[in-house]
Amino acid sequence: MLSHINKKGNAQIVDISSKQRTKRSAVAIGSIFTSKEIFEQILINNNKKGDILTVAKIAGIQAAKKTSSLIPLCHQINLDDVNIDFELKKDSHEISARCEVKCHEKTGAEMEALTSISITLLTIYDMCKALNKKMIIGNIQLEKKIGGKSDFKNDLK
Amino acid sequence: MLSHINKKGNAQIVDISSKQRTKRSAVAIGSIFTSKEIFEQILINNNKKGDILTVAKIAGIQAAKKTSSLIPLCHQINLDDVNIDFELKKDSHEISARCEVKCHEKTGAEMEALTSISITLLTIYDMCKALNKKMIIGNIQLEKKIGGKSDFKNDLK
Amino acid sequence: MLSHINKKGNAQIVDISSKQRTKRSAVAIGSIFTSKEIFEQILINNNKKGDILTVAKIAGIQAAKKTSSLIPLCHQINLDDVNIDFELKKDSHEISARCEVKCHEKTGAEMEALTSISITLLTIYDMCKALNKKMIIGNIQLEKKIGGKSDFKNDLK
Amino acid sequence: MLSHINKKGNAQIVDISSKQRTKRSAVAIGSIFTSKEIFEQILINNNKKGDILTVAKIAGIQAAKKTSSLIPLCHQINLDDVNIDFELKKDSHEISARCEVKCHEKTGAEMEALTSISITLLTIYDMCKALNKKMIIGNIQLEKKIGGKSDFKNDLK
Amino acid sequence: MLSHINKKGNAQIVDISSKQRTKRSAVAIGSIFTSKEIFEQILINNNKKGDILTVAKIAGIQAAKKTSSLIPLCHQINLDDVNIDFELKKDSHEISARCEVKCHEKTGAEMEALTSISITLLTIYDMCKALNKKMIIGNIQLEKKIGGKSDFKNDLK
Amino acid sequence: MLSHINKKGNAQIVDISSKQRTKRSAVAIGSIFTSKEIFEQILINNNKKGDILTVAKIAGIQAAKKTSSLIPLCHQINLDDVNIDFELKKDSHEISARCEVKCHEKTGAEMEALTSISITLLTIYDMCKALNKKMIIGNIQLEKKIGGKSDFKNDLK
Repeated sequence: MLSHINKKGNAQIVDISSKQRTKRSAVAIGSIFTSKEIFEQILINNNKKGDILTVAKIAGIQAAKKTSSLIPLCHQINLDDVNIDFELKKDSHEISARCEVKCHEKTGAEMEALTSISITLLTIYDMCKALNKKMIIGNIQLEKKIGGKSDFKNDLK
Repeated sequence: MLSHINKKGNAQIVDISSKQRTKRSAVAIGSIFTSKEIFEQILINNNKKGDILTVAKIAGIQAAKKTSSLIPLCHQINLDDVNIDFELKKDSHEISARCEVKCHEKTGAEMEALTSISITLLTIYDMCKALNKKMIIGNIQLEKKIGGKSDFKNDLK
Repeated sequence: MLSHINKKGNAQIVDISSKQRTKRSAVAIGSIFTSKEIFEQILINNNKKGDILTVAKIAGIQAAKKTSSLIPLCHQINLDDVNIDFELKKDSHEISARCEVKCHEKTGAEMEALTSISITLLTIYDMCKALNKKMIIGNIQLEKKIGGKSDFKNDLK
Repeated sequence: MLSHINKKGNAQIVDISSKQRTKRSAVAIGSIFTSKEIFEQILINNNKKGDILTVAKIAGIQAAKKTSSLIPLCHQINLDDVNIDFELKKDSHEISARCEVKCHEKTGAEMEALTSISITLLTIYDMCKALNKKMIIGNIQLEKKIGGKSDFKNDLK
Repeated sequence: MLSHINKKGNAQIVDISSKQRTKRSAVAIGSIFTSKEIFEQILINNNKKGDILTVAKIAGIQAAKKTSSLIPLCHQINLDDVNIDFELKKDSHEISARCEVKCHEKTGAEMEALTSISITLLTIYDMCKALNKKMIIGNIQLEKKIGGKSDFKNDLK
Repeated sequence: MLSHINKKGNAQIVDISSKQRTKRSAVAIGSIFTSKEIFEQILINNNKKGDILTVAKIAGIQAAKKTSSLIPLCHQINLDDVNIDFELKKDSHEISARCEVKCHEKTGAEMEALTSISITLLTIYDMCKALNKKMIIGNIQLEKKIGGKSDFKNDLK
């Protein structure tokens, strides 16, 4: 059953008023696939400690905090931690990002982690698009969540 | 050259004060790949005109308008149109979304279209995640942009 | 006494630092009175499961979450549930909306329910105004609140 | 025809990309009907130049600027003026508010004026609700709009 | 050690997931130094209970609630109280503001008090700048904080 | 005359509906004065190209775009450029920031530049406060504005 959709097919917020606050965390991943040229520019920028990945990380942190204003049926939750890391994969000209989010709330922070990753990658796109617009953002998925009714662990290839 | 990064590797907004306002449009696409089970639930919901795709579309429209508060180096632009369409692809259990954005500004609306698509797809994820969290959001890219210094047309496979 | 106004007549936030979190709920109602023509269009749209009331509901849910940024002296509270229903009253050409909000906070959610109803009805106005601008939004009031120092039950005619 | 709803009954933003910017204004009105006791408190507060109506006015001005983030299908427009006045009507224990909004945009500011009035009145409700929750917000309507395809003048009783 | 900066020099949110919620408060101060002419206008406005300081106070209260969306590495916290007072110092043509903030959270509200003061003073600047732009905002500092790992009391001259 | 205050002492937005859009710019400055210890940490972080000043700059850019939602009587304007620079002054243990803002609007961007500087400096405070809370933010003033009715050039000591 889709918990956000009632029997008539209409959208609804899930009522969490009878749930308890518990410790929860969620990890999301995603990648931006760039041209060789852009990848090398990001690599150079990163090696000389330029701003690209820092700006992307800050955008991702800020987005995590705004999730409930972006995703209509998300509850407002206050986050205890948002941590974003990057991996630069030379073979695939891919910058992969990983975001871990923690909270102590009645509902999990999966959407916060996924929203954070999405905005992180879009921010990289924005900073590089003047060079070449043929980038692809993809592989955005939940790696795991801990806490709540049940844990979830994705078997990522 | 990365226009958002100066010679020292530092981030910057692009100065558009000497540019003219012109008509511009941008189209972005993206998909969410779901399990067979979720895909069928969305199909049923859509066939009986349920709310899932409407909620996702509204979230995408709202996100397009918030782009400059999400992507740090984006300029504030006022949009003339935001149009989001969906295609349900049975073979790949894929809901693909397409967003066209129009404006009359000094800078293009590529990021607005891409941000809109991302939030649209995340909203579908949110509404379906109670059933199965193994969804993947991907293939987010710019299909085309018109207006400004030069047009761009992606050759999508 | 007006708790938001001190003895000098100046506005103030109510200090809730010594209060305990408790379960609370609030229900607000309100209506938009339309022309016969608009009412019939909404009825047709609703019968064929069009988007009007869904868009209004989503706007209302989002507004409930934004209440403390709209009403200056409102505290920030995180909502556990927001539920909006509509009734289409043929005789009065009236769409009445009802919003129930739940939280577990130190202060009640009356303003969240009332703000949600207001934005819900304004969204209907927006979608119908091209046809006829002579709509009236009214009868916005609190139906009841439960929890906190005392319950309140309005005797609505 | 409902311009925000297409033939299939689905919501859409109106495409204004081929329209010209012109001078526009809109005036909305609305009232909050209070108990005798609250009305007298507001009167006293106003006579000694207390904060109630000032806070309400500021909330209304801020809300006008946020309209496009509250009403999903509203375009982003930049306002040239927002002016809010109050009338205290002793016989009906009614505070009526009137908001005039001006802009130079491709689309009118009716929703900005109506949203501003709604938040103005909700803010009064918030500041007075500790005394008595039996207030009613109503009579929210458009008084007139000037500019755009055609002017509109409501014949208010 | 700078808790927001890791060993590599990179920014990070402080992980507060293992901390307990406790009662906390923070007080910040700051001043705007104006010309004699502006100071007298504000004094006259204040004596006849005009709006200047009320508008500034409302802006400060609203800003306190928005702190985590303005300061990138701030956690989202819900405030129990925000109280802003002014002192008009004739000798220095100075309006000094003081903001006390209270919460029951895992982290303190120092940034909320400081952000509130900053926006309060900027709002005074905005309302007076038509007369003379040579104002200086300064002396913004934390007066004290109570709660959390340790209290802090500034020895202000 | 205070243009934001009418004859009765009440706040108002300035009506700019009859003004023309023109090119405008504004420059604001400000400083944070730290302990010797913090100053050296920032210096080290900056020398090894750490994140502190980048995060502060991004916060300042984002704040410039949010000015009209923070300062109640500010008009919404779309910015063409926001540029923030830092100077580290060893003798005074002072990080001074300078923000230049450009737009093509009916009203100037002074408040945008000043708000940007304030949030930039508060962000530095936030990142350093774990080490020592005795920092002072000050000397926030307008350096110059160009465009509009008249230019302004501050004679800064």
